[in-house]
Amino acid sequence: MERLRRRWFEILEPSAGGDKASLISDVVLVTLIFLNTFAFVLGTVDGFKEDYAVQLDIILYVSIIVFSIEYLLRLWVCVEHPLRRDGHPVWARVQYMFTPLALVDLIAILPFYIGPGSSVDLRILRVLSMLRFLRIARYSSAFQLFGRVVHREGRSLMGVLLILVALVLIAASGMYAIEGNVQPENFGDIPSAMWWALATLTTIGYGDVVPVTALGRWFAGLIMIFGVGVFALPIGILSNGFAMEVNQRNFVVTWNMISKVDLFAKLDAGEIAEIMELLKSRHLPKGTTIVREGDVTDAMYFVVTGEVVVETGGQSLRLGPGEHFGETALLAQDLNMLSAKTATVCDLLELDAQDFNYLLMHNAHLEEDFRKIAKERLKAK
Amino acid sequence: MERLRRRWFEILEPSAGGDKASLISDVVLVTLIFLNTFAFVLGTVDGFKEDYAVQLDIILYVSIIVFSIEYLLRLWVCVEHPLRRDGHPVWARVQYMFTPLALVDLIAILPFYIGPGSSVDLRILRVLSMLRFLRIARYSSAFQLFGRVVHREGRSLMGVLLILVALVLIAASGMYAIEGNVQPENFGDIPSAMWWALATLTTIGYGDVVPVTALGRWFAGLIMIFGVGVFALPIGILSNGFAMEVNQRNFVVTWNMISKVDLFAKLDAGEIAEIMELLKSRHLPKGTTIVREGDVTDAMYFVVTGEVVVETGGQSLRLGPGEHFGETALLAQDLNMLSAKTATVCDLLELDAQDFNYLLMHNAHLEEDFRKIAKERLKAK
Amino acid sequence: MERLRRRWFEILEPSAGGDKASLISDVVLVTLIFLNTFAFVLGTVDGFKEDYAVQLDIILYVSIIVFSIEYLLRLWVCVEHPLRRDGHPVWARVQYMFTPLALVDLIAILPFYIGPGSSVDLRILRVLSMLRFLRIARYSSAFQLFGRVVHREGRSLMGVLLILVALVLIAASGMYAIEGNVQPENFGDIPSAMWWALATLTTIGYGDVVPVTALGRWFAGLIMIFGVGVFALPIGILSNGFAMEVNQRNFVVTWNMISKVDLFAKLDAGEIAEIMELLKSRHLPKGTTIVREGDVTDAMYFVVTGEVVVETGGQSLRLGPGEHFGETALLAQDLNMLSAKTATVCDLLELDAQDFNYLLMHNAHLEEDFRKIAKERLKAK
Amino acid sequence: MERLRRRWFEILEPSAGGDKASLISDVVLVTLIFLNTFAFVLGTVDGFKEDYAVQLDIILYVSIIVFSIEYLLRLWVCVEHPLRRDGHPVWARVQYMFTPLALVDLIAILPFYIGPGSSVDLRILRVLSMLRFLRIARYSSAFQLFGRVVHREGRSLMGVLLILVALVLIAASGMYAIEGNVQPENFGDIPSAMWWALATLTTIGYGDVVPVTALGRWFAGLIMIFGVGVFALPIGILSNGFAMEVNQRNFVVTWNMISKVDLFAKLDAGEIAEIMELLKSRHLPKGTTIVREGDVTDAMYFVVTGEVVVETGGQSLRLGPGEHFGETALLAQDLNMLSAKTATVCDLLELDAQDFNYLLMHNAHLEEDFRKIAKERLKAK
Repeated sequence: MERLRRRWFEILEPSAGGDKASLISDVVLVTLIFLNTFAFVLGTVDGFKEDYAVQLDIILYVSIIVFSIEYLLRLWVCVEHPLRRDGHPVWARVQYMFTPLALVDLIAILPFYIGPGSSVDLRILRVLSMLRFLRIARYSSAFQLFGRVVHREGRSLMGVLLILVALVLIAASGMYAIEGNVQPENFGDIPSAMWWALATLTTIGYGDVVPVTALGRWFAGLIMIFGVGVFALPIGILSNGFAMEVNQRNFVVTWNMISKVDLFAKLDAGEIAEIMELLKSRHLPKGTTIVREGDVTDAMYFVVTGEVVVETGGQSLRLGPGEHFGETALLAQDLNMLSAKTATVCDLLELDAQDFNYLLMHNAHLEEDFRKIAKERLKAK
Repeated sequence: MERLRRRWFEILEPSAGGDKASLISDVVLVTLIFLNTFAFVLGTVDGFKEDYAVQLDIILYVSIIVFSIEYLLRLWVCVEHPLRRDGHPVWARVQYMFTPLALVDLIAILPFYIGPGSSVDLRILRVLSMLRFLRIARYSSAFQLFGRVVHREGRSLMGVLLILVALVLIAASGMYAIEGNVQPENFGDIPSAMWWALATLTTIGYGDVVPVTALGRWFAGLIMIFGVGVFALPIGILSNGFAMEVNQRNFVVTWNMISKVDLFAKLDAGEIAEIMELLKSRHLPKGTTIVREGDVTDAMYFVVTGEVVVETGGQSLRLGPGEHFGETALLAQDLNMLSAKTATVCDLLELDAQDFNYLLMHNAHLEEDFRKIAKERLKAK
Repeated sequence: MERLRRRWFEILEPSAGGDKASLISDVVLVTLIFLNTFAFVLGTVDGFKEDYAVQLDIILYVSIIVFSIEYLLRLWVCVEHPLRRDGHPVWARVQYMFTPLALVDLIAILPFYIGPGSSVDLRILRVLSMLRFLRIARYSSAFQLFGRVVHREGRSLMGVLLILVALVLIAASGMYAIEGNVQPENFGDIPSAMWWALATLTTIGYGDVVPVTALGRWFAGLIMIFGVGVFALPIGILSNGFAMEVNQRNFVVTWNMISKVDLFAKLDAGEIAEIMELLKSRHLPKGTTIVREGDVTDAMYFVVTGEVVVETGGQSLRLGPGEHFGETALLAQDLNMLSAKTATVCDLLELDAQDFNYLLMHNAHLEEDFRKIAKERLKAK
Repeated sequence: MERLRRRWFEILEPSAGGDKASLISDVVLVTLIFLNTFAFVLGTVDGFKEDYAVQLDIILYVSIIVFSIEYLLRLWVCVEHPLRRDGHPVWARVQYMFTPLALVDLIAILPFYIGPGSSVDLRILRVLSMLRFLRIARYSSAFQLFGRVVHREGRSLMGVLLILVALVLIAASGMYAIEGNVQPENFGDIPSAMWWALATLTTIGYGDVVPVTALGRWFAGLIMIFGVGVFALPIGILSNGFAMEVNQRNFVVTWNMISKVDLFAKLDAGEIAEIMELLKSRHLPKGTTIVREGDVTDAMYFVVTGEVVVETGGQSLRLGPGEHFGETALLAQDLNMLSAKTATVCDLLELDAQDFNYLLMHNAHLEEDFRKIAKERLKAK
């Protein structure tokens, strides 16, 4: 039973490696989300609705059934998640139910069940149904990146919102004072004037409501200029946040690459961080020779992007992102047994043997750990 | 009396630590600002105004009374501010009255007192009343950050404004020359044509005024393209300014963290700056071991974000942002008495004992100061 | 035959050096692209079409003939491209036909041949004809830079598109629910409502469709604010991507400058990268003395931008971007035989002789290679 | 005569130091530019034109006379400019006449002289008159910064323009094909359709022309999304260019600060660059002690922003941006004779004596130069 649950957890998670069942489940679910959204949108078109009633209903019912089963399955397997494995299963599941992704999953199916018999306004149910499309977020890394940026810059963005609210209030009350009597239907009260203020400050400018007096236009001109400033703020904040998130993601990728190397597997966080500081970035064109066979080895390499062809003992290997080669260079400065060439434009990280030895020399604790591992490795050969 | 003034100063300042009275005053005042704004906005709606006249009046009078008392209190206690403590009290209070925040406070209450009996236009009073909402700036760090960015980039932004004015003038006079006879009501004089020019250059584009001749449209097309450039400028300036402000804020946070450590309390600015340069940034995942008990200590750590669990002598402590641990490592390389693990994703700053000793070795003045402090500390144990 | 093919390949590639035939072919083709586009655009204007029918036809036929010959020529010579030289010629040509630039070339001529006799809609052919202008991309480095940025950030931009789609769906279904009955012609079904949603979220705001109910306006206000956020995302992504592309281009430029120096010609990628790390950037005003004759030489220089006047043995040389001087400084610290001054504002890269010798000292492999080259050079003198 | 020309050159250049005559000429000319622009704008308003005809004429004639005299004066003195001092006076003046600023100066007065009697269209003269306002560029550093950024990024911006043109052509021909028959007055030919395309791609969206068919709207939606991308490009380019210009300006400011110090006056460019690399940036809060009297000196300081109060021998000096103190620290490690404190928030650059001595030790050429200067200075005391 536990193995089955483990297996289903793997299947439902977005597929990473070569897990075929997981890949199929991803494709089926993403297709259903798109189909369902498509059917819902077309179902509101007058002519179409009647002509294809059966087909639309089939899509709707099938997707609701699949989403419902999926929801229950996810609730069952969620305790397999590393972060939820320690707690009590019931409590872990309740926690899971209130994660954003699980809430979206629930909203995707709930309107169908509570809709018909309830007193909830049908219009609200319709908008909620559309939230179903947000389920796609589970499968898009860019969507999640966006979410993390918004979360990280949450306070700044709230501040921008506050500034926008303040400007909307000032613009609306100003226009209410200036043109309240001239255009009572548009600027007769502040809430009405806020419609114009918001459309102007976001630079949308529908043009359905515009000032007509000279004073109103001068005041509007002032507000327009502020609008450009308000527009600039979230751009500055979000591009900063975006750049920082990407940097941290790169950090985590590098960290994972290093900690996957056998030699470094037993090092703790501080030691891996020290090694990371020694890495040098190398951007190489296609077809560049990195290591020539028979040369003295003096560095190990990690592939960040692109592909490297390594030849050793007559065999030829293609290494992709996350893979590494030349780690024996850190153990002993021998004549090289391998040659390596870039097969595409590549970004590599180079760990120089001399830098590494220098680090060991000045760090007794690390040296001890490392020499032990090295001995075992050299014996094992 | 002085102690009472000191106490009220603390209460009125935005609460930072656990000062309950200060927190309550913050919540009450922020709530009143929002309520008052809300009442003012709704009070302009025709139906609403009559139906809820009493409630709106209560909110208005209560908030004016509270704001008035608050203004007088702030005027009384402002001399407690570190920057105003040295001058003459009367002069300090006059200075305070002309700070932007104090002016906004005054504008929030003034229209109520001078409004009814004065000859000032009621419409201007209404807009001024709305500025009341800006009082929220005192409680929003993002608002203040924005203020500092605008202040820092003031000259560049003025330049952008000048460029915008130049483009508006050229666009307006061009359109006046081209379509002045075709659409005399829209482009009959340059001030009128400026309305179209501004709406176009800020990319708002209401569409209430558009060129109709072929020549007018080609000219407008040229202006549109410049408009995108004008739009890009403040964005570039503000995001640069924003990034620099955030960097400096981080600098100040780090500075404060270091100068709060007992060991460094007596160092001067230059010395703290030297120590800051030794700090290494560490981004660690949740659950990473930072220090293991029984190992040789070799660094002290500052928590920047996230939480660290430190265990020492059977006790367990959670350290949050701004706190530090392991400073004994800088005094003597002993076996470690504590173990530390990250409880969440953490950003730490690491001060390596070896780097620190190297700094002392090459800086006789700093070493002398520091050894003295170290001796006292070790004795005190 | 092969030499002819090689020559035509050089002619058709955008000219870089002083190849006159290549420059002429560039100018002719670019002129034809512009002329053809111009003729096509004007050919749709009612009055113009009839009056200048002959001239327009001449431009059309000439350009189609030239473009067709050019297409066939390119197909013939494409195997001369370094990346396609190794494969089988037929296969290489098929691969070439499916590159974006070759597809645009084909689309530019195809409508003319298949147009008249085929059943394809004439309207689609017209739009395809306009794609002809994209042929200009071959001659504009900024166009290609843009292409690489979009390619590099492809996944992030797809994510932004997904977010935009999600927001459009939510906005449209919300408006459909709220104002579907009030404005059935605008919000009567979701596809119609999407028109408004897209115009609002991209901040274009035509104003042909606007909400009229109070609820609709509040909902639209919410969507507007999200629109600013959606706008900010691609800007953040593209400016990041742009900055990185420019950095990498600079890297490649520097790499090429170094590898063109005789002394370094035989070094491999890793060694050149080590030398690159030693380079120091120097931004110098016009008229600054870089090296004085008779001084001890201690650095070699690469010109990045601007011009440097070098005087040696009575001769005066102007060096432009990509050129270098003073490399004898790396071989022996002699009295200088040349003097150099900046003729314009210059960006130089300086390779210090001491840094370079230090590198040699700590890198036995590099030293051996380099000393051998140095000996040959000094003998050759 | 030459001295008089020199003097007028100084007066006409924007004032930098305490030159009163220069400051007055700046104020007079800037005021006249604003007044003249103002008069021209108001002179187009129907009512105003008649009522204030005399006043407007006075402003116009006075400013034309002053601008004409100024133009001739500038032409006379322009040979005093360092960059034009070497050539032949006549040739230098012709060169000057074709600089952008001089052309704007000419355009500001020319319409007045050639206007009445010539056959040039009065409308074009009017727009040219408005260019007069651009004369303000001479006095605004932000304007010039913007000019340099546009110049630096010229090629990229041309590329963006080309992309915009390509998209406008595709959008316009697409819409012409789709809605040419439906809305012949708006999309009947491609030049007409380009008006809609440009308004959409720049996100202005007047709304005077919108697609009405379903196909037209889907196509327009696609174009809108591209529009956001096109918008993002110049923003990315200009903010990059802006950041780089500001960096280089800071570089030049630092360079000037260093080369103004007596000790460094005789160093050449390479040596000053070496010193610049040793500088450490210090951001200090108000009231921080930088140097205490009686301590051992170990650094010299340059003030970048803010003010520092230096006390030495009973005297108190305020040092502002560009000034420096503590340079004796570089000559001998003595007990300090001065104490320094920040009077405002300050950015300082610190040149550490140890770093500086290390530089001298490893740079025989620099040491020789410097020791000589130092000896002279110490003797002079």
